[in-house]
Amino acid sequence: MTKSKWDRKRMDELEQWVAYHRLQASEGKCASYIPALRRADPTHLGICIIEPSGHKITAGEWDVPFTLQSISKVVSFIAACCHHGISYVLDRVDVEPTGDAFNSIIRLEMHKPGKPFNPMINAGAITVSSLLPGDTPKQKLDYLYAIFQKITSSAPVVNEEVFVSEWMTSHRNRALSHYLKDTGYLDCEVEEALEVYLKQCSIEVNTEQIALIGLILALDGYHPLRGEQIFPKQVVRLAKALMLTCGMYDASGKFAAYVGLPAKSGVSGGIMTLVPPILKRESPFPDGCGIGIFGPAIDSCGNSVAGVSLLKQIAHEWDVSIF
Amino acid sequence: MTKSKWDRKRMDELEQWVAYHRLQASEGKCASYIPALRRADPTHLGICIIEPSGHKITAGEWDVPFTLQSISKVVSFIAACCHHGISYVLDRVDVEPTGDAFNSIIRLEMHKPGKPFNPMINAGAITVSSLLPGDTPKQKLDYLYAIFQKITSSAPVVNEEVFVSEWMTSHRNRALSHYLKDTGYLDCEVEEALEVYLKQCSIEVNTEQIALIGLILALDGYHPLRGEQIFPKQVVRLAKALMLTCGMYDASGKFAAYVGLPAKSGVSGGIMTLVPPILKRESPFPDGCGIGIFGPAIDSCGNSVAGVSLLKQIAHEWDVSIF
Amino acid sequence: MTKSKWDRKRMDELEQWVAYHRLQASEGKCASYIPALRRADPTHLGICIIEPSGHKITAGEWDVPFTLQSISKVVSFIAACCHHGISYVLDRVDVEPTGDAFNSIIRLEMHKPGKPFNPMINAGAITVSSLLPGDTPKQKLDYLYAIFQKITSSAPVVNEEVFVSEWMTSHRNRALSHYLKDTGYLDCEVEEALEVYLKQCSIEVNTEQIALIGLILALDGYHPLRGEQIFPKQVVRLAKALMLTCGMYDASGKFAAYVGLPAKSGVSGGIMTLVPPILKRESPFPDGCGIGIFGPAIDSCGNSVAGVSLLKQIAHEWDVSIF
Amino acid sequence: MTKSKWDRKRMDELEQWVAYHRLQASEGKCASYIPALRRADPTHLGICIIEPSGHKITAGEWDVPFTLQSISKVVSFIAACCHHGISYVLDRVDVEPTGDAFNSIIRLEMHKPGKPFNPMINAGAITVSSLLPGDTPKQKLDYLYAIFQKITSSAPVVNEEVFVSEWMTSHRNRALSHYLKDTGYLDCEVEEALEVYLKQCSIEVNTEQIALIGLILALDGYHPLRGEQIFPKQVVRLAKALMLTCGMYDASGKFAAYVGLPAKSGVSGGIMTLVPPILKRESPFPDGCGIGIFGPAIDSCGNSVAGVSLLKQIAHEWDVSIF
Repeated sequence: MTKSKWDRKRMDELEQWVAYHRLQASEGKCASYIPALRRADPTHLGICIIEPSGHKITAGEWDVPFTLQSISKVVSFIAACCHHGISYVLDRVDVEPTGDAFNSIIRLEMHKPGKPFNPMINAGAITVSSLLPGDTPKQKLDYLYAIFQKITSSAPVVNEEVFVSEWMTSHRNRALSHYLKDTGYLDCEVEEALEVYLKQCSIEVNTEQIALIGLILALDGYHPLRGEQIFPKQVVRLAKALMLTCGMYDASGKFAAYVGLPAKSGVSGGIMTLVPPILKRESPFPDGCGIGIFGPAIDSCGNSVAGVSLLKQIAHEWDVSIF
Repeated sequence: MTKSKWDRKRMDELEQWVAYHRLQASEGKCASYIPALRRADPTHLGICIIEPSGHKITAGEWDVPFTLQSISKVVSFIAACCHHGISYVLDRVDVEPTGDAFNSIIRLEMHKPGKPFNPMINAGAITVSSLLPGDTPKQKLDYLYAIFQKITSSAPVVNEEVFVSEWMTSHRNRALSHYLKDTGYLDCEVEEALEVYLKQCSIEVNTEQIALIGLILALDGYHPLRGEQIFPKQVVRLAKALMLTCGMYDASGKFAAYVGLPAKSGVSGGIMTLVPPILKRESPFPDGCGIGIFGPAIDSCGNSVAGVSLLKQIAHEWDVSIF
Repeated sequence: MTKSKWDRKRMDELEQWVAYHRLQASEGKCASYIPALRRADPTHLGICIIEPSGHKITAGEWDVPFTLQSISKVVSFIAACCHHGISYVLDRVDVEPTGDAFNSIIRLEMHKPGKPFNPMINAGAITVSSLLPGDTPKQKLDYLYAIFQKITSSAPVVNEEVFVSEWMTSHRNRALSHYLKDTGYLDCEVEEALEVYLKQCSIEVNTEQIALIGLILALDGYHPLRGEQIFPKQVVRLAKALMLTCGMYDASGKFAAYVGLPAKSGVSGGIMTLVPPILKRESPFPDGCGIGIFGPAIDSCGNSVAGVSLLKQIAHEWDVSIF
Repeated sequence: MTKSKWDRKRMDELEQWVAYHRLQASEGKCASYIPALRRADPTHLGICIIEPSGHKITAGEWDVPFTLQSISKVVSFIAACCHHGISYVLDRVDVEPTGDAFNSIIRLEMHKPGKPFNPMINAGAITVSSLLPGDTPKQKLDYLYAIFQKITSSAPVVNEEVFVSEWMTSHRNRALSHYLKDTGYLDCEVEEALEVYLKQCSIEVNTEQIALIGLILALDGYHPLRGEQIFPKQVVRLAKALMLTCGMYDASGKFAAYVGLPAKSGVSGGIMTLVPPILKRESPFPDGCGIGIFGPAIDSCGNSVAGVSLLKQIAHEWDVSIF
């Protein structure tokens, strides 16, 4: 089959699957803790796949904007590791999965007291945000925005309405942050770490942009469109290992079992995932790809219902598990 | 470089690394709860790598016999899934990693009460042993032994001294088993499930045999020496996902981060791991391989100190992470 | 008012209250884990109050037999302390209340590992049973039976049907026992400790007999009918403190707040409690009394619904709280 | 013996005991999280006993000022119950003891989510402070100060240095408060509840003043010097039950077992306790008394080492347990 025939076939398949899995969304519902998330259309489902050539395959509402939410945890972790080195960061946050909900405090108390289990749960991510270089939230965010810009070639935009809502309602995250301050794991003031964390969560993207992040992870930090290694390979591999073991909240184990790709989800319904190059000889993506998904109706763990369902089918039909 | 030159180079490297990492063993110590484990030589370190061609690379004390212990959990999980189908098994045991120690009861109480988190912790493995087909421990074990024989072409031998010692001292496992019986997750009597579980743990192997199991997992269930698909691909992929997220006790996250290969360890000091075919173009094992390691001095999590240390070097130098 | 007029008034009140609180029983249900408990009549409610003179006030089904269940924990704790001294026993079981259910394992793992929180939860009570003097279950039980006989002047009778049922279904208690064996807190074999514990739970009594135990506790170990100090005062005071802080399962705090008397309940619906002498000048029991209650419909914590409800009224109307 | 001879004898005994138990203080150390507590003299030990007649017995450094800290929890609980009624308050905070440390978050997550276990742990006390009547921290505090003034006949003074230090370092309490806000148990803003709570903790007293509070509790809310019932009897009894089951942090069970009196301690080294009237015929305090103790060297649970030690001797020698 020629490349273009392949493409046509895959796009047709994707369109059918998106139409089918969109129906699954009714088993979830949009996050409701702030108005902006509550207003999302629960029937939306979109996907964008980008290959190293820059070639894109899209289906459904792939270009509807949404906020990064927890997907930002991957980028801020990479950013902190780039600046401080891996071992500095891992002295402050562990890399062990946990069966708990993303916002649980229990484990903070039981573990080496206060050290967050991993950078993909809120406690770990807030710790990581506090580690970003800079003396003020603005400096820390500027560092992070510069990294986003390197990836997407445009300055990230914070959805101010979302940020303000998050800021007002973030009692659980404040509880976690004060706990971390008490145990000495926070590198700046509570309100500063929270501002950085909640602003990075409020960056507005669409599936193409997170697919691009995924693609660079697939290529171990190499940006194929810029032709430049933008992150150290070791940092990216570590991030992918964390995505696989902890990226889908307390359904990470199930996602690894049924899909088998490193992924990170957010409560806004986004999922960023990727296929490494030449996993198996017959892969439809021999050079790897990045995948961005948006489906705002989420399940009780916080993952897009239709998005996970669609990814199970993709992994099965196209045989792209890393296992 | 010709194939044989490659081989020579790799064997030389392996010999040097084994000599070096053997020194790490002094940071751990042999499991001491039963005499047979206590008697092991903590300075031992051996490795065997098998490629699909049957070609073997070995170094150190690769042929010293040891008992499978928790490595058997992978085989019994595959066996139960082969017989009952994946969904039957996953109704009785979950697939989520947990940050707890392998023998923790806490999570059994907090989780959907009593359902084990995953088949790689003791509670889950005992549940899986109870699911093996057969009305008696003997029948269940015969089913399991037949699977071992299919892999290694010889009947497995149970180390009776180890089994009897385990049987006498296994209070924690009895506690877990009675708890599982109480919550309804055990498919047979407590003493029957324990007999099966402790006998499968007491099967004697050397690194070549576990490397062979690893190789078959690397090839998604295909036995290259028999030329036969002996396990369904989906079952093997699920087993590998579980190994990656939960296979190294509560250091699974760190192992995924620093080594990045599906692996399962046992308290006797064994580690079974594998490299899938053609992960990256420049892999020294383009067709995949199975790896067996033995180093009886273990750390506080229960993993071979020298073995993990050696695998970090292999993963780094030969660049074989799945991420 | 003359003594006999007082008595008449109190008996009339008691009869009315029993009739009223009997109706509360419909909010609970009989324990159902074994047939003998399941068969109890949930509408039953009986009470017996004994004063130091031997004078008895009774109402309702006060003479229906039931098994001691957890009420036995108080007697075995006193027995173990009489034999070994308080400090020996408290080295093996703590005296802290816990907000957990009586059969929880969680706390065993989190606490100084394995040391039971207190002798009123199952883990602590099984530990205490293992401490009774004697090399066999029979010897340990004989020691305990002798103490019962000293109190009630007749040999205790074990309900064999209940014992056998408990023995067959006691998976949770076996789990606790094996855990305790593993952590070294059990002074004999698991099956021996369980036999002692489950037989003491299966002793058949009626409300008069437990009221008599309560009376002796009220008098700090003095048996008024025998005219003899049968337990050391310090041991009895300790037992009463434990009853107050831990005696009503995880509703102990509420019972202390709303009733304010040392008490111990059992899942068969029994409650043993007591009023110390001259708590307040105007007490209807200036010399103290023991109170036995039976009401087999229990709540989710394991306490007799009608019994607790009746005791709240008694405490309120007769003003007998120790606070 | 005449009354005055009795008094002399008791004062002599007290002086000897204080001299003896002062030596125990070296096993503890002063709270060190803020300068004002760190500066306390760890060898200090003082006691004041007040009888309903107003007669005082004192020994040691009974008049050294210290801050109320957690002892204030009893007064604010009584205040909230006086204003709202018991059931309103107990809808927002439970009355169950817990084996956890006073500042633990774990139980908040495991329990009916977020409802504090009892008003004697920080989470419960902060909730209670938020319930005090008034729309501002000042109004809430004025309500509480008025109650103090009714007891001690002088306006309470807040140690501003202590309050400011607490306010700056109170990360753990802020974590608890934000958690409570998230779960809906806080009746005002986080910063408001904290201001009230930390100011009540910073009220300066000496042992005489807390002995006076204890005396009023001993008399079920009756103020003998004013000749007035200042709190409802039911509220005071409930407060005493809570002090007995939860008043000495996670050593409450041990204190009930070895001392047997309702008591509340604070990290500044204060203990407020009491003897109810005519507990036993031969009591040295037939009309009851209040007891205030100050000994700033505390143990790992947060209780005055010398204070607890002294109270064990008093309870033993004077036979004043409520059991």
